[in-house]
Amino acid sequence: MTTAKATNITWHEGSVSRQERERLLGQKGVTVWMTGLSGSGKSTIACLLEQMLLQKRKHAYRLDGDNIRTGLNKNLGFSAEDRAENIRRIGEVAKLFTDAGVIAITSFISPYRKDRDAVRAGSKPGEFVEVYVNASLATAEQRDPKGLYKKARAGQITGFTGIDDPYEAPEKPEIVIETETTSPAEAAQQVVSYLEKGGYLRA
Amino acid sequence: MTTAKATNITWHEGSVSRQERERLLGQKGVTVWMTGLSGSGKSTIACLLEQMLLQKRKHAYRLDGDNIRTGLNKNLGFSAEDRAENIRRIGEVAKLFTDAGVIAITSFISPYRKDRDAVRAGSKPGEFVEVYVNASLATAEQRDPKGLYKKARAGQITGFTGIDDPYEAPEKPEIVIETETTSPAEAAQQVVSYLEKGGYLRA
Repeated sequence: MTTAKATNITWHEGSVSRQERERLLGQKGVTVWMTGLSGSGKSTIACLLEQMLLQKRKHAYRLDGDNIRTGLNKNLGFSAEDRAENIRRIGEVAKLFTDAGVIAITSFISPYRKDRDAVRAGSKPGEFVEVYVNASLATAEQRDPKGLYKKARAGQITGFTGIDDPYEAPEKPEIVIETETTSPAEAAQQVVSYLEKGGYLRA
Repeated sequence: MTTAKATNITWHEGSVSRQERERLLGQKGVTVWMTGLSGSGKSTIACLLEQMLLQKRKHAYRLDGDNIRTGLNKNLGFSAEDRAENIRRIGEVAKLFTDAGVIAITSFISPYRKDRDAVRAGSKPGEFVEVYVNASLATAEQRDPKGLYKKARAGQITGFTGIDDPYEAPEKPEIVIETETTSPAEAAQQVVSYLEKGGYLRA
C-alpha cells in the first residue's frame, strides 16, 4: 500500500468504504421502493416517511417523478421499452444512494412486476424493501388527486395504469399498506417500524 | 394545509426541504467535478478527498467508472452520442446527490467542454465546482497506470482521449490542480480548502 502525506496525517490509497459512510450517518443504506396505482397515496406516505426519518436524524432522499422525469429520464417517453428503462435507471440511482448509506425512497407507480423484480435482483439481500401501497382501483379513481383517471376515462390519456394498462401487484412485498384502513401517517409509521426492527436505523 | 396524525405528532404535507437535509448533515450539497486525462490522477485525488471529508465528518459520495459504467450507464457505448449521454446522466445523478445534501465527487475524463458546460448550466450557481486535474499528455502517458496509452498507441484502443480523440481543458474551472508540482494529498487538501472557504462544509 502506497501512502501520501498532507500536513501530518497519512492517508491510505483506496476509497472510503460503505461501512465508514454508514457509521458517519448512523444508519444503513437501503432502498424503500413504493409501488401502487396513481392515487394510492405513495407520495403522501413517502413525504411523511421522510419527515419521520428526519425527526430521528436519519438521512433519506426521495426519488419521484418531479426530480427524475425532468432530469435523468427526460429523454424517455412512455413506450414499453422506455417505461422499462425508466424503472431500470431509477433502480440504479436508488442503488447508488443505498451504497452512499442513504435511505432512498422511490415513489413511482412501477406497474410491471418484471421491472421491479429486476431492480430487486440487482440489489443486495435486504437492501430492496418493496412497499405495496394497496388501494382498489375504485378508491384510487375516486381520489383522483391529479384528475388523471378522468382524462384516461375520457380517452385523453392512453396506456394509463389501471384503465387501459395493467398494474401487477407485488407477490412478495416486504410491506403491504392497506390504504383503505390505514391513514398515511400510520402507513409511514409502519415503514419506520419495519426499518427500525430490521436494524436499518443504526450503523 | 392538511395534516395527518400518528401518535401525538402532527405532520405537515409536503417533502423534507433541502435545507433540512443540509442542517442534518452539517454541510451543503455540491458537485465536485474532476476532469482530466486518463492517468492525470483524478481517482487518487478523489479518494483522498473522500477520506479527508470523512475525517471532518462530512458525507461525500464518489461517482466513477466502477459504479456508473457497470450500472446506470451499462447500456451506453463509446459513440459520440453515447459519450454525451454518459456525461449527461452522471451530471443528473450528481445533481440528485447535491440536492440530497451530499458532496458528490465525480471522477471521469469528461473530455468535451460542451458536455461539462451542459452539466454546469443545469446546476444552480455555486453547486458545480469544476476541478481541472492538469497533467501533460507526456506525464499521463508515462504514468499509464492501466496500460491504456500503450494499447492506444498500438491501435488496440481507438478514440482514446489525448491520442486520437481530443481533451478540451476547462476555460474557467473553479480549481486547477497542477499535478506535476502537487502531490495527490496536497491536491485533495486544495479542494478541501476551497470547500471550507466557500462555506460548503457547514449548513
